[in-house]
Amino acid sequence: MAEKSLSGQVQQKKASGWAARDTCGVLSPFDFYRRVTGEKDVTIKVLYCGICRSDLHMLKNDWGISTYPLVPGHEVIGVVTEVGSKVEKFKVGDKVGAGFLVGSCHSCHNCANNFENYCPKLIGIDSGHFTVRIPDSLPLDACAPMLCAGISVYSPLRSHGLDKPGMHVGVVGLGGLGHMAVKFAKAMGVKVTVISTSPSKKKDAIERLGADTFLFSHDPDEMQSAVSTLDGIIDTVTGFHPLLPLLGLLKYNGKLVIVGGPDKLELPVPPLLFGAKAVVGCFVGGMKETQDMLNFAAEHNITADIETISIDNANTALERLEKGDVRYRFVIDVGNTLKSSS
Amino acid sequence: MAEKSLSGQVQQKKASGWAARDTCGVLSPFDFYRRVTGEKDVTIKVLYCGICRSDLHMLKNDWGISTYPLVPGHEVIGVVTEVGSKVEKFKVGDKVGAGFLVGSCHSCHNCANNFENYCPKLIGIDSGHFTVRIPDSLPLDACAPMLCAGISVYSPLRSHGLDKPGMHVGVVGLGGLGHMAVKFAKAMGVKVTVISTSPSKKKDAIERLGADTFLFSHDPDEMQSAVSTLDGIIDTVTGFHPLLPLLGLLKYNGKLVIVGGPDKLELPVPPLLFGAKAVVGCFVGGMKETQDMLNFAAEHNITADIETISIDNANTALERLEKGDVRYRFVIDVGNTLKSSS
Repeated sequence: MAEKSLSGQVQQKKASGWAARDTCGVLSPFDFYRRVTGEKDVTIKVLYCGICRSDLHMLKNDWGISTYPLVPGHEVIGVVTEVGSKVEKFKVGDKVGAGFLVGSCHSCHNCANNFENYCPKLIGIDSGHFTVRIPDSLPLDACAPMLCAGISVYSPLRSHGLDKPGMHVGVVGLGGLGHMAVKFAKAMGVKVTVISTSPSKKKDAIERLGADTFLFSHDPDEMQSAVSTLDGIIDTVTGFHPLLPLLGLLKYNGKLVIVGGPDKLELPVPPLLFGAKAVVGCFVGGMKETQDMLNFAAEHNITADIETISIDNANTALERLEKGDVRYRFVIDVGNTLKSSS
Repeated sequence: MAEKSLSGQVQQKKASGWAARDTCGVLSPFDFYRRVTGEKDVTIKVLYCGICRSDLHMLKNDWGISTYPLVPGHEVIGVVTEVGSKVEKFKVGDKVGAGFLVGSCHSCHNCANNFENYCPKLIGIDSGHFTVRIPDSLPLDACAPMLCAGISVYSPLRSHGLDKPGMHVGVVGLGGLGHMAVKFAKAMGVKVTVISTSPSKKKDAIERLGADTFLFSHDPDEMQSAVSTLDGIIDTVTGFHPLLPLLGLLKYNGKLVIVGGPDKLELPVPPLLFGAKAVVGCFVGGMKETQDMLNFAAEHNITADIETISIDNANTALERLEKGDVRYRFVIDVGNTLKSSS
C-alpha cells in the first residue's frame, strides 16, 4: 500500500530507467515516480536485469496489452535499500531478486498453496513477499535470468514429476529457457535430449551444457530414431511449430509441457488418444518454488550463460535477441551503467 | 493361435454377418470363415451388438485404414459356445462381452499393468483374455454399448481422478458416450454439467439422466456464467469444435479429456499457460478396467439408453446415427434377427 501524506496526497519518489514510448519499442532514458516504500514493501536498487523474449513482445505490443511509456524487465537482481515496517524477511543490504510476479490476492486457494503464479488476481503491487533471496555463492549477473527463464523450466520439471533420476526429458529450443532446462534437468539426474532447428547448437548442447543427445528437428530420420523414448518434453519455443513430431517422441502417458508458445497451435488428436499423452501449460512458478530453485542452483553451481551489456546497448541487444543471436541471455549491468537523473 | 490340421492347413469354420463391400458403407448379408477355437480362444454366439459412430467412420474409410469386405461392430454381447483348452475364466453358456480390444502383446510394460489399450502391438486376435463377464443383473441388450461407449468415458473419469464425490465434471456432447458419462459420473457422486449444441437435450439431460446443470454451448452468456467451475471435462465430440470456451470452463489445473475428436483441433495456448490446464487423450480402457466398469454398472443399475433394431434395419440406423437421430445408442438384436446361411 502506498503511504499517504497528511494532505491525503500519495507520496512518491523519483526513479530512473529506460522506457519505450510507443510500439516501435525503442528504449531511451526515462524518469518517473514510484510510491514510497509501504509497510510490506521492500525497495531495491537494481544491479542487473536480464532481457527476456517476452520483453520484446511487450515492447512492441504483440499481445495487445502494453501501455506506454513502458519500462520493461522482469529478471531483476539488486540490493535492498529500504524495508517497510512489517517486512521481517529482508533487511537493508540483502541481495535479492524479483521476477514476473509482483502481486497476488494472498487469499485464494492457489495463493494459500504457494501457487501465486496461478492467482486469478495476479497484480502489480511490489511487496516483500515477491522478493527472493539470492544465495551468497551465486554471481548476481548470471543469476538474473533465473527469475524468469530459470523458474519457467524448473517449475514444470518439478510439478510434472520430470525430475526423477533415470527419466528421459526432451528440451525443445535451446535459448534462454532451454539452456536452463538442460542444466536443471541434468542436475536432477535426468537424461536430456535437446531438440532444435539449429544444428549449429549441437556441440554446445552436448559438450558445454551437458545434454546427452541432440536431435535436429528438421531431420525426419533423426526424429524417427527417437520415437517413444521421452517421459516428458519442456517446449520453450515461442513461435508456431508443429506438435506432431514432438508428441511422437513421447512414451505412453508422456507430457508435452508448453512454457511459451504462440497464441494458437495445431493439436493432433490421435497421439493423445492412442498414447494417453497430454499437452499441458506451465507459467513461471510460485515464490516458494522460485526460492527453492535458487537454493538448488546454488547447491549445484548452476547459473545462466550470459552476455553482460551496458544499458546504452539495450536496443542493439533487443535487435540481436530478435534474430536469436545470443548465447543464451543478455543481462544489463544496470548498477554500473544506468545514469540516474537525480 | 489358430489350430492346424494334420495336413498343415489352418482349420476354419463358417460364420455369418453383415458386411460393407466398399466405401459406400452399405451393409448386406455376408458369409465368411473364422479359425476354429484356439487353445486360448473363446467362441461367442453374438446376441446383441451396439452401433458406434466409429463404425460409420470405418465403413466409409474416413480414417484410410479400412479393408473390404468389412464386418463392423465392437460392442458385442453374446453367450460362450466353445472354450479353448487353456481358458479357465469362462465356460460354455457364460454371458460375455467383447469390445474394441481383441489382442495385445501381453509382454510390454503397459500390458503388464492392465493397460492393454495402450499396447504398441494392439492386434486383432480373439482370445479369452479380451472377453469380459456380463453381470447377471444387467440386461444383455442395454449392456452392449458399455463395451465401447461405456468404457470410453468410465476410464478417463477413473484414470484422471475425476471420480471423487464433490467434484464437478463437464460432459461435452450428449450422445452414446456422453449419456454414459453422465450416468457414471453421477453414480460416482460427482456433480455433472452437460455442455451441448442441442438445447433440445436439456430436459433429457437433467430430468432423465440426472445431470445437475446444462449449458447450451452456442450461448456466450451461459458459457460465461460457468467460467472456472469445472475440475475436468470429458469431451465426446467427434467433429471439429473450438476448445477455447471449454478450457475457459475449467478451474486452475483442470483437465480436458478428449475421448473422440477429429484428426486435428486448434489448441489455444494462453489458457494452458495461465491456468496450468491440460488437454489429454484417453482411448477405451484395459480389460481389468472394463470388467470393473461392468461390475460398477451392475452395482448402480446403470445401463445404456438404447433403441433395439433388427439387423435388417442396420442401414437405416446408420443413416439416422449420422444425423444424430438416436437416444442414445442403436443396438442390433443379432441373436433373433440375423439369418445364418448355414
